[in-house]
Amino acid sequence: MALENTQVCLAAYPRGAATSDNFVLRQEPVPEIASGEVLVRNIYLSCDPYMRGRMSGGVGYAAGFSLGEPIPARVVGQIVQSRNPAFSEGDFVWDFLRWENFTRLKDVRALRKIDPTLGPISHAISVLGMPGRTAEVGMIDIAQVKAGETVFVSAATGAVGSVAGQLAKAAGARVIGSAGTDDKVRHCLENLRYDAVFNYRSEPPARALDRLCPEGIDVYFDNVGGETLDAVLARIKPFARIPVCGMISQYDGGGYPLRNAGNVVGKRAMMRGFIIYDHMQDFDTYPTRMAARMRRGEVRYFDDIVDDIENTPAALIGMLRGDNVGKRLVRISDDPTR
Amino acid sequence: MALENTQVCLAAYPRGAATSDNFVLRQEPVPEIASGEVLVRNIYLSCDPYMRGRMSGGVGYAAGFSLGEPIPARVVGQIVQSRNPAFSEGDFVWDFLRWENFTRLKDVRALRKIDPTLGPISHAISVLGMPGRTAEVGMIDIAQVKAGETVFVSAATGAVGSVAGQLAKAAGARVIGSAGTDDKVRHCLENLRYDAVFNYRSEPPARALDRLCPEGIDVYFDNVGGETLDAVLARIKPFARIPVCGMISQYDGGGYPLRNAGNVVGKRAMMRGFIIYDHMQDFDTYPTRMAARMRRGEVRYFDDIVDDIENTPAALIGMLRGDNVGKRLVRISDDPTR
Repeated sequence: MALENTQVCLAAYPRGAATSDNFVLRQEPVPEIASGEVLVRNIYLSCDPYMRGRMSGGVGYAAGFSLGEPIPARVVGQIVQSRNPAFSEGDFVWDFLRWENFTRLKDVRALRKIDPTLGPISHAISVLGMPGRTAEVGMIDIAQVKAGETVFVSAATGAVGSVAGQLAKAAGARVIGSAGTDDKVRHCLENLRYDAVFNYRSEPPARALDRLCPEGIDVYFDNVGGETLDAVLARIKPFARIPVCGMISQYDGGGYPLRNAGNVVGKRAMMRGFIIYDHMQDFDTYPTRMAARMRRGEVRYFDDIVDDIENTPAALIGMLRGDNVGKRLVRISDDPTR
Repeated sequence: MALENTQVCLAAYPRGAATSDNFVLRQEPVPEIASGEVLVRNIYLSCDPYMRGRMSGGVGYAAGFSLGEPIPARVVGQIVQSRNPAFSEGDFVWDFLRWENFTRLKDVRALRKIDPTLGPISHAISVLGMPGRTAEVGMIDIAQVKAGETVFVSAATGAVGSVAGQLAKAAGARVIGSAGTDDKVRHCLENLRYDAVFNYRSEPPARALDRLCPEGIDVYFDNVGGETLDAVLARIKPFARIPVCGMISQYDGGGYPLRNAGNVVGKRAMMRGFIIYDHMQDFDTYPTRMAARMRRGEVRYFDDIVDDIENTPAALIGMLRGDNVGKRLVRISDDPTR
């Protein structure tokens, strides 16, 4: 076991896009634990789009990250010391911990054990975890996608979008995606069962949607907001549903001027923002349900893994820029199940 | 009975605001009816905001009005000749008829009798009719307003808005309104039970909402879109609901650039456009239900009546400009119940 605990801390609030200057590494001794506590050796650190908003002092539903403190994030790890009867050394777990090698956890109430027979343990914070359940809430619970509908998913290869698109496909919809590189477009078509995909960096969304869904859009799973959302609003069918999961294009500040919101009335459409924390009541049954879909081949999932804790800031910055193909994780210690 | 049937026809599609040049009056003989048909003497012609959209060749849910034809509209009238056993001479009725003195109705399936004991017969196309039910659908069915919430209604004195605000008040909410003249502001406070009202022509909505609901908005019943909607989006509370009934500020063309739609995610808000035609399944029980509310004093209603069919274009144009206080109707023949 390492004698040091490397922590990745917030050094400064970003102005515009996050840069490496916003982070600082800190070395601390590995903490001691007291009765009732556990020590987790962290294996996978999550990099998620919502983190950009919290780096800027908070978004509507959550406070901002604190300067000088390790960045809070979802983490998969293994119990290395336990002084709590509910957890044993060797258990795989996930929780909202921090970007660091070892976490001393005083309050284990939110710590969840991972069933390693359901899939790779990293999936506990991706397809079998909150990002996957986010896709399910948006596409199934809110949009109530139906067979024969035309569905569009932005950020189509992302941690959430890639699941949302495949859930729509499994429901019998025709599924269009957008992504920011030709590699991602290929990945969607070859691995993620999308019917058609465009690169929004080389073709304006309005033109691509006219080409790929000339009869309009029934469901838009919005991960990006901005120009793409506006292009969709001009092309929705009657009774369209737009679950709004995120507006990553706007996280660096500056509200994009939406011009086509009037169509919400004309088409009797519904737009609904949601975050997964409001839908945790059904979470416990989710990993088993999604693992079954994966066994049936309805959903495939791809982690995009960066190694070494020192690379965590660059991994997040790259993800916000769109470098990842699949769920961006940082592996900071050995995963004994791989 | 008059020997002539004056019709108000669409002469040209407006560019920008509708003007009197867009209409033309035509004289026709009073039509003869055949077996199975009825002849209706029209008494009240409706002027509604949605008509502006249909004058421009249609909106999402409906085709445009036809050039050279009488303008279709909701009408209250009285049967003056019947060759259909379901209707008797003297029956008060309402239906989607046309801006004209006499309508020969071949298909009576949508013709509805008015119970004159529920209230003034003009109410059949206002508070006891579709505009009132529109308010109920938006405020009760979609927004599900609750006691203690802060509710904002734009076009607060309008045919729909004035009912929406009073339904929220009856549910125990604090209700804020906006209107376009000081007379309307006074009318809201004196007659319509609003807690606070501002004149959006003399105070920007953003400033007024900061002043009148500094803790934010739970429900916004949107009749206007544009700058007001954008100001609301910046001030919504978590789980806000925005039933979108209309965007009258945008009917003359030109999409207002909404900058604060990102808050739909941050606040997990819901925006839903609706039109009353999708909610007709519960309509039959509505007039009795609303009449009971009116008897209990929960809802008061004010018609804004213009006389003479020749004034119908000016009545519509004035309503679109905001001249009316209450539901704008044109009385084109004698109402024997008043």
